[in-house]
Amino acid sequence: ANDGDRALLLEVFEPLHPADIADLLEQVNVQERTKILQLAGDYIDGEILSEIDEDIRNEVIETLEPSVLAEAMRTLESDDVVDILEDLQDVQQEAVLEALDVVDRIAVEQALAYPEFSAGRLMQREVVIAPEHWTVGDAIDHMRAQSDLPEQFYHVVLVDPRHRPTAYVTLGRLMSSRREMPLQSITEDSFRVFDAVEYEGDIAYAFNQYHLITAPVIDENGRLVGVITIDDAMAVLDEEHEEDVLRLGGVGDESLSNSTLEIVKRRFPWLGVNLATAILASIVISLFEDVLQAVVALAVLMPIVASMGGNAGTQSMTVAVRALATRDLTGSNAFRVVRREAVAGLLNGVIFAVVMGIVGVIWFGSPMIGFVIAVAMIVNLLVAGLSGVLVPLALDKVGIDPALASGTFVTTVTDVVGFFAFLGLASVVLL
Amino acid sequence: ANDGDRALLLEVFEPLHPADIADLLEQVNVQERTKILQLAGDYIDGEILSEIDEDIRNEVIETLEPSVLAEAMRTLESDDVVDILEDLQDVQQEAVLEALDVVDRIAVEQALAYPEFSAGRLMQREVVIAPEHWTVGDAIDHMRAQSDLPEQFYHVVLVDPRHRPTAYVTLGRLMSSRREMPLQSITEDSFRVFDAVEYEGDIAYAFNQYHLITAPVIDENGRLVGVITIDDAMAVLDEEHEEDVLRLGGVGDESLSNSTLEIVKRRFPWLGVNLATAILASIVISLFEDVLQAVVALAVLMPIVASMGGNAGTQSMTVAVRALATRDLTGSNAFRVVRREAVAGLLNGVIFAVVMGIVGVIWFGSPMIGFVIAVAMIVNLLVAGLSGVLVPLALDKVGIDPALASGTFVTTVTDVVGFFAFLGLASVVLL
Repeated sequence: ANDGDRALLLEVFEPLHPADIADLLEQVNVQERTKILQLAGDYIDGEILSEIDEDIRNEVIETLEPSVLAEAMRTLESDDVVDILEDLQDVQQEAVLEALDVVDRIAVEQALAYPEFSAGRLMQREVVIAPEHWTVGDAIDHMRAQSDLPEQFYHVVLVDPRHRPTAYVTLGRLMSSRREMPLQSITEDSFRVFDAVEYEGDIAYAFNQYHLITAPVIDENGRLVGVITIDDAMAVLDEEHEEDVLRLGGVGDESLSNSTLEIVKRRFPWLGVNLATAILASIVISLFEDVLQAVVALAVLMPIVASMGGNAGTQSMTVAVRALATRDLTGSNAFRVVRREAVAGLLNGVIFAVVMGIVGVIWFGSPMIGFVIAVAMIVNLLVAGLSGVLVPLALDKVGIDPALASGTFVTTVTDVVGFFAFLGLASVVLL
Repeated sequence: ANDGDRALLLEVFEPLHPADIADLLEQVNVQERTKILQLAGDYIDGEILSEIDEDIRNEVIETLEPSVLAEAMRTLESDDVVDILEDLQDVQQEAVLEALDVVDRIAVEQALAYPEFSAGRLMQREVVIAPEHWTVGDAIDHMRAQSDLPEQFYHVVLVDPRHRPTAYVTLGRLMSSRREMPLQSITEDSFRVFDAVEYEGDIAYAFNQYHLITAPVIDENGRLVGVITIDDAMAVLDEEHEEDVLRLGGVGDESLSNSTLEIVKRRFPWLGVNLATAILASIVISLFEDVLQAVVALAVLMPIVASMGGNAGTQSMTVAVRALATRDLTGSNAFRVVRREAVAGLLNGVIFAVVMGIVGVIWFGSPMIGFVIAVAMIVNLLVAGLSGVLVPLALDKVGIDPALASGTFVTTVTDVVGFFAFLGLASVVLL
């Protein structure tokens, strides 16, 4: 039966791209995944491994025969091996490193010496270079004589005698230029180099902003050590975005392949923080028990103030967090953006104050209740607009990712201020 | 003074990349932007125009002299012209089209005939092709003889006699292969074609998923009409991200360059919807005025139930919306994910029920209040987990972007269920 199952499984895998097989392994549950790996573990090659979500990659690697794993790693480029290795535990790292050829192992170990999430980890070490003084003909002859050109490359990088990159030429341009043309005269304006220790998120941003396809990476002496290509930058951009969205939603780092217990464990701390801030808001409410006892309508309307403030704050915060991530919100326009949010909050506050004032009067037949909720609405939407932009700016300033913590702070501010304004004013006016 | 200001401005612009000049124009306010354009409008070229956010591109174009605009457009590739034109009003479109050469105009008009956000709009029409039966030598000689190769290209596309793309070869591979090698034997596995009417978001996803650098675009007869390159796909991926984040935050389509009145106008509808759902929640509360009047502690604790439910629902929803966007959540694993969210919600519900039960007893000295909030917490976190995944799935099923509307539905459900469970149980137990 197992042989039949295996044949069936391989038939499913056969037409699929490695990335799709990886997705398939991520989408099934642990039991199914174990079963699949038992039946067809030897089908898992390096390409599939490098596509699998890091959350379950460990799990998959543990089930593979050492010989299968070693073979899988040997077929990969060094940057993909690094990508897999950096998420493994030490023991597994050792095992994989030992399975590599000496040359590959040294390359991988050198890459692992760079900080996590740096250009040095992201780059590939295979670069096609040419001395600055060469002509198109020199470059073409040199390339055609080489036996080990990288699998994917789009530029020839010009280097000076000290091996520092100074410019690059696209292969297309090489193809369309006369042989005697100096390479120097057909270089691209888009040329940019990155330090090996630079943060990968900044590099992804630069690739998108400046439409780069390739960018050389240099060491601390300015010497060429590798090259980053746009497909890797695009993957980083996608990961950064995933992180932002999940963090904004109060979920740290989570994927569909996580088990139930894992997601309980990961979401718990965020809910705990939220509970603490909610209790803070409740304490504010408890200061006004007298007026709540006297006018029960306040308890009915109270959640509207909190909800509107939370929503307006989230709007303002989302725009600010996104603008910080895309480098559109900077020191030079922060004041203008804060003022804009304050005025917009005030204007929307006035509009909804009128609406809620009327609703309050009609619903509870009390102009005073209408007045109280109207004023609370204005105060709360103004504060929501302001805190929505000031909190992310402040977090960014002190080096905390604004996507991570802004939400909690902003809703705490709008809850506390909202309840305080609403119930405080009610005590003064209605008691 | 104006001449001095102009000189100063050009000195600032000089070292900047067109994308950075565009950012600068986006970051200043309307008055400053007008001033800059008055002083140095003729410095705004096609590249800067194509980098400017579409929200303010109209504003910039209106201030430019027709001759400056025409010149700016003539220097652009046809896909960039299309990108600018599609956001202009009809009158402006006409003016720009008339400024173009006949050949360019026809190319642009053909592209505009494809639907918005389609491959046909995104692609460039300049493709380097070769008949399938050619050798490496044939291809190299052909390219070197051509005078008008595209500025950027990375592959040679092989076409059959009916001009249908069948494979491609990278320039790097061409460089490293012997002249007599048939092109057919050095093609890439990654080859994928797209229909001209395909949605650009799906294309960006495919580029990232399958590590594509170039992909040919075909018409309804399968004939090659253009090619999409990864830099354009990366820009689309970034825009899709932007849209998702902003929609999840309850902000439709907004940027820092929008004026205060514009953001008031854009945020207002979302706040209006939120007000309607908040009033719905208030109506639920008003059903229980008796018990609120009798036990004021309920009014104090009520927001905790709503806040915890809203947060847990947002967590579950964020993961689901993101997983739908990345095609990780599909019909085949939906049931498993829903069950996972239900169990996780229940588990977190039990944990926080214990915590809040204790807090309730200590704070208000009433075991009954502790019991009521504990049960409400379990019910609400279970419902939050479930609605957080079921709402996005349902919206996706009926063709509404889950990022757009999930938040409102989910918090409405958690508010209504939370208040109902908490106050309803309180009426039964405490009255």
